[in-house]
Amino acid sequence: MRFFSDNAAPACPQVMDALAKANRLDTAYDGDAWSKQLDGAFSDLFGTQVRALWVTTGTAANCLGLATLCPPHGAILCHQVAHIEVDEAGAPAFFTHGAKLTLLPGPGAKLTPEAVEEGCSRIGTSVHQIPPAALSITNATEYGLSYRPDEVGALGEVAKRLGLGFHMDGARFANAVAFTGADPAEVTWRAGVDVLSFGFVKNGGMNAEALIFFDPAKADLVPRLRKRAGHLLSKGRYLAAQILAMLENDLWLSNARAANAAAAALAEAAGPERLIYPVEANELFVRMTAEEAAAIRAQGFDFYDWAPGEARLVTSWDQEMDAVGRLAAAIKAL
Amino acid sequence: MRFFSDNAAPACPQVMDALAKANRLDTAYDGDAWSKQLDGAFSDLFGTQVRALWVTTGTAANCLGLATLCPPHGAILCHQVAHIEVDEAGAPAFFTHGAKLTLLPGPGAKLTPEAVEEGCSRIGTSVHQIPPAALSITNATEYGLSYRPDEVGALGEVAKRLGLGFHMDGARFANAVAFTGADPAEVTWRAGVDVLSFGFVKNGGMNAEALIFFDPAKADLVPRLRKRAGHLLSKGRYLAAQILAMLENDLWLSNARAANAAAAALAEAAGPERLIYPVEANELFVRMTAEEAAAIRAQGFDFYDWAPGEARLVTSWDQEMDAVGRLAAAIKAL
Amino acid sequence: MRFFSDNAAPACPQVMDALAKANRLDTAYDGDAWSKQLDGAFSDLFGTQVRALWVTTGTAANCLGLATLCPPHGAILCHQVAHIEVDEAGAPAFFTHGAKLTLLPGPGAKLTPEAVEEGCSRIGTSVHQIPPAALSITNATEYGLSYRPDEVGALGEVAKRLGLGFHMDGARFANAVAFTGADPAEVTWRAGVDVLSFGFVKNGGMNAEALIFFDPAKADLVPRLRKRAGHLLSKGRYLAAQILAMLENDLWLSNARAANAAAAALAEAAGPERLIYPVEANELFVRMTAEEAAAIRAQGFDFYDWAPGEARLVTSWDQEMDAVGRLAAAIKAL
Amino acid sequence: MRFFSDNAAPACPQVMDALAKANRLDTAYDGDAWSKQLDGAFSDLFGTQVRALWVTTGTAANCLGLATLCPPHGAILCHQVAHIEVDEAGAPAFFTHGAKLTLLPGPGAKLTPEAVEEGCSRIGTSVHQIPPAALSITNATEYGLSYRPDEVGALGEVAKRLGLGFHMDGARFANAVAFTGADPAEVTWRAGVDVLSFGFVKNGGMNAEALIFFDPAKADLVPRLRKRAGHLLSKGRYLAAQILAMLENDLWLSNARAANAAAAALAEAAGPERLIYPVEANELFVRMTAEEAAAIRAQGFDFYDWAPGEARLVTSWDQEMDAVGRLAAAIKAL
Repeated sequence: MRFFSDNAAPACPQVMDALAKANRLDTAYDGDAWSKQLDGAFSDLFGTQVRALWVTTGTAANCLGLATLCPPHGAILCHQVAHIEVDEAGAPAFFTHGAKLTLLPGPGAKLTPEAVEEGCSRIGTSVHQIPPAALSITNATEYGLSYRPDEVGALGEVAKRLGLGFHMDGARFANAVAFTGADPAEVTWRAGVDVLSFGFVKNGGMNAEALIFFDPAKADLVPRLRKRAGHLLSKGRYLAAQILAMLENDLWLSNARAANAAAAALAEAAGPERLIYPVEANELFVRMTAEEAAAIRAQGFDFYDWAPGEARLVTSWDQEMDAVGRLAAAIKAL
Repeated sequence: MRFFSDNAAPACPQVMDALAKANRLDTAYDGDAWSKQLDGAFSDLFGTQVRALWVTTGTAANCLGLATLCPPHGAILCHQVAHIEVDEAGAPAFFTHGAKLTLLPGPGAKLTPEAVEEGCSRIGTSVHQIPPAALSITNATEYGLSYRPDEVGALGEVAKRLGLGFHMDGARFANAVAFTGADPAEVTWRAGVDVLSFGFVKNGGMNAEALIFFDPAKADLVPRLRKRAGHLLSKGRYLAAQILAMLENDLWLSNARAANAAAAALAEAAGPERLIYPVEANELFVRMTAEEAAAIRAQGFDFYDWAPGEARLVTSWDQEMDAVGRLAAAIKAL
Repeated sequence: MRFFSDNAAPACPQVMDALAKANRLDTAYDGDAWSKQLDGAFSDLFGTQVRALWVTTGTAANCLGLATLCPPHGAILCHQVAHIEVDEAGAPAFFTHGAKLTLLPGPGAKLTPEAVEEGCSRIGTSVHQIPPAALSITNATEYGLSYRPDEVGALGEVAKRLGLGFHMDGARFANAVAFTGADPAEVTWRAGVDVLSFGFVKNGGMNAEALIFFDPAKADLVPRLRKRAGHLLSKGRYLAAQILAMLENDLWLSNARAANAAAAALAEAAGPERLIYPVEANELFVRMTAEEAAAIRAQGFDFYDWAPGEARLVTSWDQEMDAVGRLAAAIKAL
Repeated sequence: MRFFSDNAAPACPQVMDALAKANRLDTAYDGDAWSKQLDGAFSDLFGTQVRALWVTTGTAANCLGLATLCPPHGAILCHQVAHIEVDEAGAPAFFTHGAKLTLLPGPGAKLTPEAVEEGCSRIGTSVHQIPPAALSITNATEYGLSYRPDEVGALGEVAKRLGLGFHMDGARFANAVAFTGADPAEVTWRAGVDVLSFGFVKNGGMNAEALIFFDPAKADLVPRLRKRAGHLLSKGRYLAAQILAMLENDLWLSNARAANAAAAALAEAAGPERLIYPVEANELFVRMTAEEAAAIRAQGFDFYDWAPGEARLVTSWDQEMDAVGRLAAAIKAL
């Protein structure tokens, strides 16, 4: 029973059905009937005119987005454990031709307006320094916390004041929205976000993520950058179809709610003593000695050690509640 | 009835079945059971130990491969109408951090040893010039010609003598092998090819291409480069499964034979007068006035104008022979 | 007696004097009294408000200039033997993060509006191609021809119409202006040039070139790019002082006239039969058999073979007219 | 009386003389008589065969050196206030095509083996992370501390063990060697340093720095990289001549000793209470209230505020001891 990663889960049935339906001749690249619906579908979801493009990975979404916000000689402010800093092999530098990630602190991988202002204030304005150009946050964060609209809004105000583009890495955007119940618009463009990497793969998709520009004019260059990075698939309809299936009937939200519910059940079992952070999405970071972890694993549960004395559990859209129940019981029994 | 592009065709049934079978929980990225079979499957096919990686586009395959052969300050020799020069939006420069494409002539988009030697001889050796580091050919070529093993071998000898890495863009490798009947080994590593972009998407795949290194040691860096370029998919098993399905029972060859047969039927109908190049794969370049093209289109056939007085017809693995027959008749009737 | 290269010549006395005078404490980088005069001095020369920066090489000037005109995914149109293509080791790709040089033909390394339009018309507009963003010409050209104001103006019109930035590599701008007698303004900004690399090193400078932006607003980024490329010298006053000395009393023109006069004397001696191009600056390309070249060298003259049967002679600001006379006699006597 | 920066000082007389002597025709680029002597002169100084190249800035020296040690996908470990991190406008990322600076702590901008090991141990080895490839230290450090040979040696051992190339930014190498009295070999290659940026401009040079490779084979690529970055000057003899003049009769050491002596006199006056770091080169970081700083400035002394309550004083090779004495008195009198 795996509590490793939401990347390990299968694609959900509706996505598989959509692929089957899209399996017919159509125009290549993104000229097909499905790809052409993306702008409209996301514009409906967000209640404003957006530009939406498919890509196959969150790294590509994040980095194509950041490349529109930050020049090679600029800096992107992010949390010191942000995925773009820690887990993307330097892809932000590759896509931006060398922009710098300027690292900020914050509990639970969350940024605050104060941290952003303080970070910017330390950067000189002479040509010897690297001027800040963009701010990137992850929602839900790398430690499973979800930003509330007013938190994003406060960051958006600082970004605007300091002239920073504002990017949200939403690899688990669905889980965050499902948890907070926020209107997707409130937690993004109305709060000042310019670009959103809207993740689907961790939430039941197969290999399609969406890159959303809340100002369509700022997306003009992205199709070229996507092609130049080898990310323009020949048969794009299979990506667009996945995404459209996830948007239909708010499947993205129901899948996320299922994953969140499993995490909540585990959190309940673990109790506040063991939880390093509140559980606000589908990830738990749990205090657990090596012996305890071994004991849990001996019962057939797989998960990552995150740090000494710390385990990470991740739940998926398809997590069987039976297995969840048994893991909850095992944790409780420690 | 579309004769536009093999990119427009659907994925073949065996690929769809393979996706369904792979649709279960497994390790993320390329740690899954399918991805781990790629090295072995291609080693069997080529009769030598290779390293094989999945990517989603031919551009990514070409450029990751070239990035292992050419430093930022080096040059890649290729044909002046090579796909990497004409149709990849500068991706080779992006992935190699600025390497130069040095363009060579040759009929039918085919390179000769003489052209390669002549091209290299024009490049000075001082630090003011850009030293040649790699040779790239496309097989089948951009004009639908297929290299014979001895032709590749002669280029391989020149490449070795001049110290050039040797890359083959095999977006239509299957069509070339199906046409010439060559042993895949004879037309690649035994002929000196170091890296092959082995295309599947134009041949019935959905979104998986293979990048083959005939010297596995030279592939060591590629997993990092792939991740850094945002091309490491979270659920790689869906790509590996497609490729394995295409290799099983030589489906890649039977699909290519079907496409080639359709092209051959059209070539027969067009006759040598109209054909600009011999038809050696699944593409035809046909002399056709604007009036003639319009007449054909009026009968329901779609295809690209390639140049004034020149049309390109492309056939796919699933081309209905009925439509082919009708198009053949329409061309004959011109 | 060397007729190798104007790079081999010493710095002229006025430059050495200027260095001695600048040899006192002042603000570092470009905050000193000399550097601050550059904008004004060049604005006076060109009769319009310009932004002028020192750099140490023509390659740096060209590439910093081009980096302001062309994005990484764009193309720079230039002659197929342009210095930026042939002799800068790929520096344009380095500074622009991978922009492409699209090569155009033209006799004597000169471009025509027709060649530019034809070159652009061959580039498709889809995301698969590389859109043209800039035009670069060399004046005097790599074969020693000087553009007239109307020729530059015609190119400037095409550039404007096609939305191309317009760069002039003026490594031998002084020689061109000295030859044509053109007003510096007429052959640059009034003719549509946006950025000029104004060379001084080949004309009696030690190690200072000027990079001129005719629209100062477009230079805003250049100080950062210059620093980022390691080209912001700590003691910039020694570069600025050289340039100011060359501008004073039009020394740049009198030096160029001296070099041109030596070239003209040699051209006169060679006669039209031997000259491959008209001599319009300080370079001669002369038809000469290997035996003839050996005979001249045996008399103590050094120069480059440029191509089989072709020699290049370059004259400098300090070329002794006695040596010129003897070489002229030697050529005449062939 | 300026205590701003050693970059503000003039060039020393021997350098000016050398420029005058080099002011005659010779081969262009680095083919001249002076440039050819660099390898030998530095090999003598360091007691081993080295490869030495001139460049015009410390940033260029650092970044060309680092580009030979670290690939685009690798990390360079350095102190969090290292010049390459704080004051080079992202040039390391530019020259390395995106390598990451991984920041380490340490008092006085000095690194310890423990900090390096700890920093490396935090970097995972999967393709998602950025593998450490190089270590860079500054000697004297950004806070004016000088490494002893055994300190460098301990870092060199760690670097070797972890497979890291080892670079020393020696913008003030002369001051460090003058202070410690170390044998230049002991504090560089014998301690494991692979590449040294040997600064001259802050020490009485005009615009020449040296880049030293202790394994000449590892420098093979550098002439191309230097040209590609626009740093191959046409008349390189004027840089080589400066450097040779600085090496002659150990002028580099006597100049540094003069600057250090001035700093020592000021340190003596300031006393241990005011000094934030021991003074081990030509820089002082002094506790000073805003009122105190104003009082000193009112007496005609110029210097930088470094942080609230902290002033930086820098002395130069030509610092007049009279002014030093008056500043010392002024500080004492606070």
